[in-house]
Amino acid sequence: MKYGFSHRVRYLKSSAVREILKVVNNGNVISFAGGLPDEALFPVNAVSEAFQKAIQFDRKALQYGETEGVYKLREQLANRMRQQKQIIRQPEDILITSGSQQAIDLFARIMINPGDVVLTENPTYLAALQVFSSYETNIVAVESDQDGMLENDLEDKIKRLKPKCIYVVPTYSNPGGKVWSLERRKALLQLAHKYHVVILEDDPYGDIQFEQGDTPPPLASMDQNKYVLYTSTFSKTVVPAIRIGWIVGPHQIIRLMTQAKQAADLHTNSISQYALVHLMQDFDLDQHIQVIRDTYYERMLVMKGLLDEVNIEGMSYIVPKGGMFMWVNMPETINTTDLLQIAVEHGVAFVPGAPFYVSNPKENTMRLNFTNATPDLIEEGMNRFVTVMEKAKVQSVENAY
Amino acid sequence: MKYGFSHRVRYLKSSAVREILKVVNNGNVISFAGGLPDEALFPVNAVSEAFQKAIQFDRKALQYGETEGVYKLREQLANRMRQQKQIIRQPEDILITSGSQQAIDLFARIMINPGDVVLTENPTYLAALQVFSSYETNIVAVESDQDGMLENDLEDKIKRLKPKCIYVVPTYSNPGGKVWSLERRKALLQLAHKYHVVILEDDPYGDIQFEQGDTPPPLASMDQNKYVLYTSTFSKTVVPAIRIGWIVGPHQIIRLMTQAKQAADLHTNSISQYALVHLMQDFDLDQHIQVIRDTYYERMLVMKGLLDEVNIEGMSYIVPKGGMFMWVNMPETINTTDLLQIAVEHGVAFVPGAPFYVSNPKENTMRLNFTNATPDLIEEGMNRFVTVMEKAKVQSVENAY
Repeated sequence: MKYGFSHRVRYLKSSAVREILKVVNNGNVISFAGGLPDEALFPVNAVSEAFQKAIQFDRKALQYGETEGVYKLREQLANRMRQQKQIIRQPEDILITSGSQQAIDLFARIMINPGDVVLTENPTYLAALQVFSSYETNIVAVESDQDGMLENDLEDKIKRLKPKCIYVVPTYSNPGGKVWSLERRKALLQLAHKYHVVILEDDPYGDIQFEQGDTPPPLASMDQNKYVLYTSTFSKTVVPAIRIGWIVGPHQIIRLMTQAKQAADLHTNSISQYALVHLMQDFDLDQHIQVIRDTYYERMLVMKGLLDEVNIEGMSYIVPKGGMFMWVNMPETINTTDLLQIAVEHGVAFVPGAPFYVSNPKENTMRLNFTNATPDLIEEGMNRFVTVMEKAKVQSVENAY
Repeated sequence: MKYGFSHRVRYLKSSAVREILKVVNNGNVISFAGGLPDEALFPVNAVSEAFQKAIQFDRKALQYGETEGVYKLREQLANRMRQQKQIIRQPEDILITSGSQQAIDLFARIMINPGDVVLTENPTYLAALQVFSSYETNIVAVESDQDGMLENDLEDKIKRLKPKCIYVVPTYSNPGGKVWSLERRKALLQLAHKYHVVILEDDPYGDIQFEQGDTPPPLASMDQNKYVLYTSTFSKTVVPAIRIGWIVGPHQIIRLMTQAKQAADLHTNSISQYALVHLMQDFDLDQHIQVIRDTYYERMLVMKGLLDEVNIEGMSYIVPKGGMFMWVNMPETINTTDLLQIAVEHGVAFVPGAPFYVSNPKENTMRLNFTNATPDLIEEGMNRFVTVMEKAKVQSVENAY
C-alpha cells in the first residue's frame, strides 16, 4: 500500500553518524566515529545505588510526574549552574528533557514555521540540523573562523533574513572542537539584543575542559534571561542511556516548551530524574568529571601526537581545548566519504565532515573522536589510518593521470 | 520582549487533567480525577532488582543506544503480543517510545500536514487530541454508540473527507470505558481496507480486563500489517515513571517514525529498556497483572455500588468491563465544570467530560477514575460527592427560578 505521509518526511534523513555506528559496532573496527563517552569511566556503582534509592525511596517517584520535571532536580541544576557557570536562573525557568536533543526539538516546535530562518555555524551539530530541517527551517550558515561567527556577516544576515533564532555550540563544539572567544560571544549577544533575536546555546561539552581557566563564560551567564536559551545534558558526565537533559531560559518560552512536551511525551522518565537527585547528593560528580577531563585530555594528546607523526602534506587540524572531537582538514584531493570506505576495510572508522555543513561542504574534512578508545587502541587505529592514507595517496595520484 | 513563536503554539493547551492534578496533589482532596494507577500495586522490589541487573549487567546498557530500541525488548514484546493478543509481528516492526504518548506524537509528525483530517471517537483520549491539534489537524468526530463508531457515518466521512487516519481506543477506552464489539471492529477494518485509510489503535488498557473471555481481539490481530498501527505501554502494568511504550505496524511507517524519533530525542532511556528485559524474564508479570485486574475490578464495583445508592434522577453511567474509568452522564441541568469547583471545596475531584469532546461537548458528563483510591477512600470520596450533588441540586433549582 502507498501511504500518504506528511511533507515533513522529505526532510527526515537517518543520521550518517548513527548508520555508521551500526556497522562499526559489529566488527573489529577501531572507531573514531560516533561521539560516545568511554564506558570504562561510567560510575556504575554510584548510578546503581542512585537508582536503588530512587526506586525504594518513594513510590511517588514511580508514578506519573509533572511535565516540567522533578522540582528537586531543577533546584540542584539551578544551584550547579549558578556555582559553576555563573548562570543565575530559577528552578521554574528550567525544563527537564529527554536528553538535550529533545530540548532542541521542543524549541524548534514552538518557534519555527516552515520557511523561517535559523542562523548557525558552518559546520555545526548534525542532529540539530536534522531537527531544524524536519520543521522545514531555512537554515543559513554564518561565516566564521576559529573564534566564532564573524560579526559583519552575522549582522548582515540578521538584518536581511530576520532569523527566528541563532543556534550555536560556542564551547568545545561538535564537530569543530572550537571555543568562541569572549569578544565574539559579546558581539553575538549585542547583536541579539539589538535586533531581538533569540539564541539557542547548546552546551553538552562545557564541563569537559582540558585545562583550567582559559574558557570564556557561557552566553547565558552574560544575558538577562531574555534572549538566551541554554541547554545541556548528563550524557557526557554521567551516562548517556539515562537520557536526561535540560533547558533554561525566559519563562514564557520554557512554559510553551513545557506544553509542547506534554503533547510530545507527557514527562521525562522520573526514575532517572530521582536517581540523578540522589547521585548529585551522594556522589562527588565534580571529582568524577575531573577524571573524565584528565582521561580525555590524555587521549587527545595521544591522537594529536600520532597525527603529527603521520605528517601528511596539506593536512591540518585544530588542537581542541575540551570536548570529544578533533576536526581534521585533509589534503584537498581527498574526499573523506570515499576514504571512509577504504578505512572501514582496514579496520578504522571516522566521520566524514560533509554532513555537518549547512552549505558549501568541505569534502576533505573529517571528525575524529578520541574519547571512546584507550591510548593503545588510538595508537593501533592511527597506524591503520596511516595505511589507509598511503592507499589514498596512491589512488589520488593515479586519478590525477 | 515579544518573541516570535510558531503558529503551532496556538494549538498548545495545557491539559485540564494535568492542571487539576497539580492542585489536587497538594491537599486532602480525594481524587477521582487523573488516570493514575495505584502506587500500592507497584512491584517495587521487582523493579528495583531489574534496574540493578540492567545497570550492573552490561555497560553497553548505559551507553548511547539504537533509536529503534533494545532488540531483546522488541523480541519479548513480539512474543508477548503473539501469545496474548494474537498480533503476529516481527521485532523489526516495533519501535520503542517514551510512553505511548510519544508514539502518537511521532505518528502524527510523519503523517499530518496542516488541515489533514483525522477521524476519532467523540469523546476520546484528551492527550491524543492535543497531539493532533498541535500538528494543525482537522479532527472530525464520527458518530458512535456503546459498540463503537457507526458504520454509515464512518463510511460517509471517509468518502467525503479523505482522512489521513482513524484514531481509536477500542478496548476499555479513555474516557468512556467502552469496548467496541467484534462486528464494529470488523466493519472499521473493512472500510479502512476498502478506502486505504491507516488506523491508529491505541491500547493502553487492554491488559486490564475485569472478566475473562468477553473482550474482542485487537484490530491489529485482524489486519495483515498493512493498515493498523498498534500502540501500548507499560505505564498501567508496571510503573508509569519508566516511560516505556511501543508501536508496531507496517515497516515503512515504523521506519519513518524511527527517523523522526532520531531527531526528536535520539533514543528511549535504555536503562529502563534493559530493566524491562530483566523484569519480563525474572518476574511473573502476568500474575501481577491479574492482581491489578482483581483490585481495580473490586474498586469499580465499590464505586458503582455507591453511585447506585446516590440515586440522582437523570444520572446514568456505563459499567466498564476493564480499564480505569467510569463515564457518568449527570442530569442535563448540571454543568460539571461548575460542579468541579464545588467538589474540590468539599475535598473530592473528578474530570469534567467536556475537554474530551472533539465537537458538541456534553457539559453534563464527567470521568471518574477508580484505580487510585482504596475502597475506603472511594466510599469517603463518594460521600463527599453526594454532599456536592445536594448543593448542586439546590443551586440548579435556585437557578431555575
